[in-house]
Formats: sequence, structure tokens, C-alpha cells
Amino acid sequence: MPETGHGDPATGGFGPENLPYGVDERGRVVVAHGDDVIDLELAGDLGVDRRVWTSGSLNAFMSLGPDAWSGVREALRRRLSELPAAAVRRRDAVRLVLPVEIADYVDFYASREHATAMGRLLRPGTEPLPEAWTHLPIAYHGRSATVVVSGEDVPRPSGIRNSDGGPTYGPTRCLDVEVELGFVVGVGNRRGEPIPAERAGDHVFGAVLLNDWSARDVQAFEYRPLGPFLGKSFATSISPWVVPLSALEPWRVPGPLQDPPPARYLRTAEPRGIDVRLELVLNGTVLSSTTTAGLYWSMAQQLAHLTANGAATRTGELFATGTVSGSTPRSAGSLMELSSAGREMLVLEDGQKRTWLEDGDCVAIRGWCGDPGTSDWVSFGEVRGEVRPGPEEVVVR
Amino acid sequence: MPETGHGDPATGGFGPENLPYGVDERGRVVVAHGDDVIDLELAGDLGVDRRVWTSGSLNAFMSLGPDAWSGVREALRRRLSELPAAAVRRRDAVRLVLPVEIADYVDFYASREHATAMGRLLRPGTEPLPEAWTHLPIAYHGRSATVVVSGEDVPRPSGIRNSDGGPTYGPTRCLDVEVELGFVVGVGNRRGEPIPAERAGDHVFGAVLLNDWSARDVQAFEYRPLGPFLGKSFATSISPWVVPLSALEPWRVPGPLQDPPPARYLRTAEPRGIDVRLELVLNGTVLSSTTTAGLYWSMAQQLAHLTANGAATRTGELFATGTVSGSTPRSAGSLMELSSAGREMLVLEDGQKRTWLEDGDCVAIRGWCGDPGTSDWVSFGEVRGEVRPGPEEVVVR
Repeated sequence: MPETGHGDPATGGFGPENLPYGVDERGRVVVAHGDDVIDLELAGDLGVDRRVWTSGSLNAFMSLGPDAWSGVREALRRRLSELPAAAVRRRDAVRLVLPVEIADYVDFYASREHATAMGRLLRPGTEPLPEAWTHLPIAYHGRSATVVVSGEDVPRPSGIRNSDGGPTYGPTRCLDVEVELGFVVGVGNRRGEPIPAERAGDHVFGAVLLNDWSARDVQAFEYRPLGPFLGKSFATSISPWVVPLSALEPWRVPGPLQDPPPARYLRTAEPRGIDVRLELVLNGTVLSSTTTAGLYWSMAQQLAHLTANGAATRTGELFATGTVSGSTPRSAGSLMELSSAGREMLVLEDGQKRTWLEDGDCVAIRGWCGDPGTSDWVSFGEVRGEVRPGPEEVVVR
Repeated sequence: MPETGHGDPATGGFGPENLPYGVDERGRVVVAHGDDVIDLELAGDLGVDRRVWTSGSLNAFMSLGPDAWSGVREALRRRLSELPAAAVRRRDAVRLVLPVEIADYVDFYASREHATAMGRLLRPGTEPLPEAWTHLPIAYHGRSATVVVSGEDVPRPSGIRNSDGGPTYGPTRCLDVEVELGFVVGVGNRRGEPIPAERAGDHVFGAVLLNDWSARDVQAFEYRPLGPFLGKSFATSISPWVVPLSALEPWRVPGPLQDPPPARYLRTAEPRGIDVRLELVLNGTVLSSTTTAGLYWSMAQQLAHLTANGAATRTGELFATGTVSGSTPRSAGSLMELSSAGREMLVLEDGQKRTWLEDGDCVAIRGWCGDPGTSDWVSFGEVRGEVRPGPEEVVVR
């Protein structure tokens, strides 16, 4: 029995109830098990074409659909005690790469607490929640090409920011993070054929931790009327491990009451939510602890909404919750909220002070379900990134 | 010498100065030449690995870069009079498919006339141009998975629209089009390495006609604060022919004066613009005639902006101008503008009346440079789509 009992979500919580998927530096599909990783191509017959294990991403396997997903999971579980030695390596000896070839990337705005706080901070004196917010899960398309795996650095982006002297181009002065959970589509839908909310489980393969890095000054100047663009598109980091949706089933929760009742295509059976605990850690200090349990709009509602107009999705589509914030001050999932848009100083354990991120800062988001250290908790590991100085300004002539 | 002199932009304008690229129903790269298409794999040695011609899209060829693009173009021109018979088919006998595997899709808002008109119609009583509009090319990310080739039908999308009785879900009542020009990236950039505006030509392979279908009622309800989402993501149609950027060089124009002067990364050498004539045709009636010559933000500025924060682009990225509208009433590129948001009836040549699109309507956008029927004009052909009824509402339970 591999070691799963220690309570650090960055390294523990990979017991046989979890078995998340990743891709190693050689482009081979691996599964985390305790302190080991299992190379699936060397794990023996798992009931699917072995070539899906060496194709450089999870996409080929994910596209096989839910029967293959559960079949492989069961076959692997049965085989855990008799794996060939060649199939097993120490987890800390493996470098993981971006596990999914990202198709479209969509980011929702599903936390009422976050949307309300952002409205108050960005549009003071007006109704903080947008009119449509309780009627539909608001979202925007982000940039697929800049989704990166945990561990990749984040160069400080430049953009046009407004200040007393007027708009000028330069490095962001308000670099922020957003604590999110992302969902990976394994099997898409055809154009013109929406996915009913109750069928989301046939399409969604699993979940990742996600940090939607944000440049708040760039975003604030550019976002009317077409939404965030350069303020978000420089980097989106995800965890290397994709936790199968079935591993999250034990942590289903009802989710908040929805009032007004949503349109029919957004109605789903209870329990609607999932209780994934999330921690935001800056240079080793836990700044915030929150959970996805209170999100107003669920994963299934998000996917149903995203396709309700007949939009097609493809294998590798990534959609995320938006910032997960709770109702208490230390449960907000962004520095924007934690520092009240830069007006309140956050003090780290070593005495350093921050409002926004500085070059050299290291941000990690950890996530898990259940009680760390018990026998059946499920960890996502972490998504981590370090801020480094951005490139010099591009001088045109 | 193939026939190029007739003046219909849907079929003429494919002389040796044009030679646009497409992909046929067998996944083979073809070039239009007069009333013929040339199968490049059968055209003899063009100086690049022949496998790029049978890979199902233009992406493999485009990724080879600008030297390969110009080399193939020159080699093909020299060979036009001595092509093997097997390489040539009649253009009207070939079915073309989506020519590009689309990576990210970005839509700009580069026409001052369009942005001003939309501001007046959507936000009456406020300053129509958003504050940032003259400082940077505003844009949003759209949905790559629903970019389709000319000829594919457009099912009427459903979504949540607001009315006197409150928000309800149902088929859009305000189905619209947007006349645009799109640019296809052949060679991307790495994350953290912005593309200078003057280097855009090393990255952009060519241009297409683009119709950004829009559901105005859905868009109006959902777009605050994260921008358009389901109101746009159900279909974006592009022309099957990708016109090489070099074929457009003779039609460079200065572009309008930019005041205030743009930030340094947005400054480019003159001439900044391109004069592509565009026609919007509904059920055979020309509703609008416009040109890209007056666009405020140029293609090179758009690409420089899109990467100014270090965002990566990839082979197959598609970015578009946004609706191309002129300053006269019959030069607007959307029904929203032409019908003043549905308040003014448009009368077609056969007496039919329209504000928004009805099921069965056929919309075409034609585009060309130069004078149709002369020896050196360059046509994009057309992008066409028919509206059909949408799917039944998805009933969840």
C-alpha cells in the first residue's frame, strides 16, 4: 500500500480513490498513485488501444468516452498490487507537462461572492451584480494558446493602463491571481446539438486546479464593452494532474438555492455542487481558504449553458468556474478582493507586505476533497507559478 | 490563359496575381486559378515537402514560414502554363472544406463607424465610443470550434433574451451578420515574446472573408461585464479561399489619421491599411457596400496588440477586423446598423422586407481588391450561409 496518509495536499492524497491522470516529459500518460506514478503503456492490458498512452497528451484517451474512462479506471485498480516494476517510478522523479491539448478555453463567473465583490470594486455606486447574473452563468472565452502547466514562470505582462497622466503602455502594476477549478471536456458535441445539463458527465473527463493570472489595471482600461482581453490572456496555469470526475462523486453537495429558478435547460438534479477545498498560498503564506461548495452555477449548468446556442465543443475544451470566493474576508480567491483593489496591505508570515504581486513572488493553489491525512481524501496536488520580470518593451522603430 | 476577366466576385478574380489556397473534400491543398483548381501535390516539385499538401488543412504548409510561402508562390507561377493535366480540375466541380485548423480566434472592433453606431444603439445617452477605443484595438476571444466554412447552414441559436415579461430562453429574434475580413496566422510566437507590428508580415499567411453571425438579443442581455459569449459563439463562417498576404500588397492604402498618436508598440510604417471591397448580399439583394480601407486599426496593429502582453499565438490562429462599416447609411456591415436595431425595415429587390434574418434566408459576403473584370483584380470569392430553424429546446426533465 503506497503512502497516502500524510496531510500535505501538494504531495499527499493520491490514494486508489483518486488515480489522477497526467503526461510525463516523454509524452506518456501516467497516473499518480501514492508517491509513485504509473506508466500506463507499461501497466499491461487496460482494455483500450495502447497507442493512446504515448500520444503526448490525454486527448486521444479522453476522446474514447465515458465507458473507456471507467473501464480503464477499474482495470487499473485491479492491477495496482501487481504492476510490473518497469511501470512504476517515484513521483518526485517525474517531470509533468501540460496534460491536455487545449481546444477552446472558457472562464465562468460562478461565485456570487466574487461577482458581487468585483462589481463593488470596479463599478462603485452601481448595482454590483450584473442584471443577467442570476439568470445565466456569465462567461467569456479566454486564450487557449497561453494555458500552461504548473511550474512554468509568468513573465510580468505589459499593457495600456490608465492613470492621472492618461493611458500609457508598460508593465502591469496590478498583477493578480484567480483561484479556480477547471473542467476538461473529453467528448465534445456537434454544432447545433446542445448538451443537456444532466448529460454533462458523459462529456466531462475530469478537473484541474486553475490560476487565471490577471493584470487588473490593463483589464480595467480595456474591458468595455467586449470583456477582458490582454488583462487575462498572458497566462493561465493548470495543475498537471487531471482528477477524474468519478473521483469527485463522493464530495457532491447540494449547492445554494437558485432564485429566480433558472431556465429549464439549466435545471439539474441535486446534488449540484462539489466540495473542493482550495488554498491560495503566496511565498509560503496561506492567504485564503475557500471551497467550490458554495458556487452558484454548477459544472453541469456551465456546460449546458456553453452549448445552449448550439456551440460545438471538442476534446480538450477547458472551462473553469471563475474565481472561487467565499463570504468571509479570508476566503476570497484573488488579491483584488483580499487587498480591496490594492488599498489594504496583506502581511505575509515572514513580514513581507503585498497588495499586488511582485517579481519573484511564488503563487501556489492547492486543492483537495475530504479531510487531509485520512484514508480516502482526494488531492489535486497544486498549481504553482513564479512571477518574473517581463520582456523589454518592443520598440518598433 | 484561364478566364479571369468576368466581373462577378463570387466566381471571377482568380488570376495569377491571386492564387489563393484552399483544401478540397479529400483534404488536399488546392490553389484557385481562373476557373480551375490546381492540386498542389500533383503540380510537381514546389520546393517543400509534398506531405504538406495532403494533411487535411493548410496548417502544415503555413507553419513553414514566409520563405516557403513566397517560394511556393513563385514556383507555382512559373509552372502555370505547364501543369500536368491530372493536377487541374474545374473549380465548380470541387467541394472545399474548412481550410485551416483554427487555433485561437480573436475578433477586433477596428471600425470607428461601427463602434460608434453600436455605442449609440446599445448605450443611448452615453458617449458612444468606449474610452479605450482610440488608445488600443479593442477585441475579444471568440469560439474556435464553431468556425465553419462557407456553405454550412446556420441553425437559429437559442439563448436567454430579455423582454417586458422578463428574461426567457428561446430562439433568437434578432439574428444578424457581421461583414468582416479575417487574417490567418501561419507562424506563431512564443509566450513572453510579443510580435512587433512591423514584423506582422512574417507571421500572417493570408486573409479570408468572415461572417460573424450574431444574436443581438442574446448578446444584449449577457454581455456585461465579460463581453459577448453565446450571442456570437454559435457560428462564424469563413470563405474557403485564403488569399495570400502578398496578393494584397498592391492594394495598400494609408489608413485614417490616428489621433491621439498610438503607443509605440502600435506604430507602423505607412501605408497601414488595405482596400478590400466588401458587399453584403441578402437573398440576392446587395444591402451594403463597404471597404476595409477606412479601418482605424490595421492588421499589423491588431497582431501587435494581441501579443503585446506576451500572449502566444499558434499556426492557425484567426483574427478578424470586426464589423466593417463605412460612414454612409448603405455601407454598414450589419443589420443592427442597417435597420437601426430593428426599427427600420429593409426592402429586398423582390419586395420582401427584413429587419433581422428569417429562417431560409441566405446571406453572402463577397470581397475583392481592384476593379472587377480588369486583368489584375483579386477576388476572395464569397462566404455564404443559409439560416435554418434551430434545434428543439433541450428539455432536461
